[in-house]
Amino acid sequence: MADPDHPQAGDPVFDLHVGGKMSIRSTVGLEGPDELSLAYTPGVARVCEAIAADPALTRHYTWVPNTVAVVTDGTAVLGLGDIGPAAAMPVMEGKAVLFKEFGGVDAIPILLDTTDTEEIIETVVRLAPSFGGINLEDISAPRCFEIEERLKQRLDIPVFHDDQHGTAVVALAALQNALRLTGRDPGATRVVVSGAGAAGVAVTRILLEAGISDIAVLDRRGVLHSGRSDLTQVKLSLARETADLTGRRGSLADVMAGADAYLGVSGGSVSEEVVASMAVDSIIFGMANPHPEVHPDIARRHARVVATGRSDFPNQINNVLAFPGIFRGAFDVHASAITEAMKLAAAQALAALVGEDLREDYVIPSPFDPRVAPAVSAAVAHAARDDGVART
Amino acid sequence: MADPDHPQAGDPVFDLHVGGKMSIRSTVGLEGPDELSLAYTPGVARVCEAIAADPALTRHYTWVPNTVAVVTDGTAVLGLGDIGPAAAMPVMEGKAVLFKEFGGVDAIPILLDTTDTEEIIETVVRLAPSFGGINLEDISAPRCFEIEERLKQRLDIPVFHDDQHGTAVVALAALQNALRLTGRDPGATRVVVSGAGAAGVAVTRILLEAGISDIAVLDRRGVLHSGRSDLTQVKLSLARETADLTGRRGSLADVMAGADAYLGVSGGSVSEEVVASMAVDSIIFGMANPHPEVHPDIARRHARVVATGRSDFPNQINNVLAFPGIFRGAFDVHASAITEAMKLAAAQALAALVGEDLREDYVIPSPFDPRVAPAVSAAVAHAARDDGVART
Repeated sequence: MADPDHPQAGDPVFDLHVGGKMSIRSTVGLEGPDELSLAYTPGVARVCEAIAADPALTRHYTWVPNTVAVVTDGTAVLGLGDIGPAAAMPVMEGKAVLFKEFGGVDAIPILLDTTDTEEIIETVVRLAPSFGGINLEDISAPRCFEIEERLKQRLDIPVFHDDQHGTAVVALAALQNALRLTGRDPGATRVVVSGAGAAGVAVTRILLEAGISDIAVLDRRGVLHSGRSDLTQVKLSLARETADLTGRRGSLADVMAGADAYLGVSGGSVSEEVVASMAVDSIIFGMANPHPEVHPDIARRHARVVATGRSDFPNQINNVLAFPGIFRGAFDVHASAITEAMKLAAAQALAALVGEDLREDYVIPSPFDPRVAPAVSAAVAHAARDDGVART
Repeated sequence: MADPDHPQAGDPVFDLHVGGKMSIRSTVGLEGPDELSLAYTPGVARVCEAIAADPALTRHYTWVPNTVAVVTDGTAVLGLGDIGPAAAMPVMEGKAVLFKEFGGVDAIPILLDTTDTEEIIETVVRLAPSFGGINLEDISAPRCFEIEERLKQRLDIPVFHDDQHGTAVVALAALQNALRLTGRDPGATRVVVSGAGAAGVAVTRILLEAGISDIAVLDRRGVLHSGRSDLTQVKLSLARETADLTGRRGSLADVMAGADAYLGVSGGSVSEEVVASMAVDSIIFGMANPHPEVHPDIARRHARVVATGRSDFPNQINNVLAFPGIFRGAFDVHASAITEAMKLAAAQALAALVGEDLREDYVIPSPFDPRVAPAVSAAVAHAARDDGVART
């Protein structure tokens, strides 16, 4: 008889999820009264008093400096969209497990029963003493931009919207290696970014910071430019830094003709004819999951470098290459923020791991390459020091 | 040279607290791409979709039903008072470790950067989808009463202010055994409760529910009765159920003369002369920590049964006897609340464990008695079913 609590028994995905994917572990012994009196009353009172007298001791005597809240309102979960906070939990637990496995970071899923921008900001500010950092996750655009920006202003701990910046860091690393492989100068490369949501905006910004200046960003209605009357403030600002400077206009087909690189974060699809119109030795990153904008088998007929978000093809653009090491590095130096320089350093470190092994099917390391998190965290910690946001 | 981050190195309490007392543990493997695709994308999307279609599956496929938020604003921490949320963390971590060790419950400390009643309520309501229950901790009276009451109304998960009800459950269990030992009828026993804060109010209420009707409750100004003009609403309501019915008035010394039992939750102190004025075979529970209202060495000169909150004397009234088993039992049946009947059942189960071994120095089991949590949780789960709040 089917178990009503476990209707999908026998399915490996569902079997693995029974009871959730994480738990709390005590790191101290509690075998008897003596240990209890150290870890709890009466001993604990002295640690509380010491922290009350010197709040910086929180970093040394609590788990706070190694914890990150993974905060979502469930409005933009994977490709599923607005499924609400409760249904988002398996993703948040998965994220927490990856934080621990790859970065040694203790992550706690926080599901918010509100989608109101002001309420989300206030709630996170009120919770903040509990955590060493805030990872915003699967919050829909454009609210995600304002929420992140204002939390960064109000809090003195790292605030990081992974759907934006994790994707951006890994895409930049892969693109830099693809440009090196194909002998391109970043300043003379024509890039198309398809999608102007959380990931598209952040990918574009980090490409600009990395010196790639000819970018056409598209939403469903075509290239963003300030002549359009339908743009949000975020899109308008992006238009001014991209197509307004190059004069590129039109549809995806218009800008893809002769383009060097296509970065898809839209979830749409691109016809083979359009792919074929790109420059020789083109670069195609179809990052939508699980269905890339261009299937890799088709992309490979025309492009020299092909990457996707999938683990069953080469060159996987996976955020797990970035977020565990970024938080690890920020936490290692008690950084007060994650700055642009820290993100660029993370991308640089990721790209550098490929080194002389660079090939068409190896422009980015594997998520299971054990060098990844240590390299990223070291680069991020170093950049935090250079940027003046390290506190130890 | 002293480490500025660890000024108390060499002190066992501080050494034990380095890095905090807890961490996150993954309960699934992540050894390679295949496991990643089950625990995270793409597999996880199917679990999210299943929960979106049937939210009750949260209970089976996430860690939510086994988690409790340990929520504080840091205003009434141990005997230290209002030391703020950050300095409260060692106590909250200690509580979390006890939840896991004794109840198998995953507890997450949530420190709130607000002491405003409305803001605390709103914040907890917004977080609630993340957790299977809410344990309020070290929030000062009288705000704690309203916060608990209103959260219970708004949430369909257990909400439990441990400083009130944990103390009350254990005190009742010990008192029932002490009454049995001294041959007293609860209905004819004169009790003095010294302290009308969170614990005093809850202890008094549970004694009333257990059939003890002659109770004088005192705050710093003496016995609570409705003739006083300085009472809060909570104290006034308590006065009407206690001294208003018996006519008892005056100071602690006035009501202690001839009293059968003294329950101290005030942190004050009681002179030996006043202790000596109590009835023959008197019962003295000095529960303030770490300094009982009556030192057990003095209390024993006059009383037959003496209990404290301390682990270095017999009869330890320790909340850890109650809260892990209470939440374990509530979670085992997915209870929507922790009701009065469930608390009474917990006290009854605790008292019953002493059984025929009842002696002056054994009216309550040891916190390390392995029978405690299973007995409490079974009784609580049973009471939840009887009370109609169990959901499985």
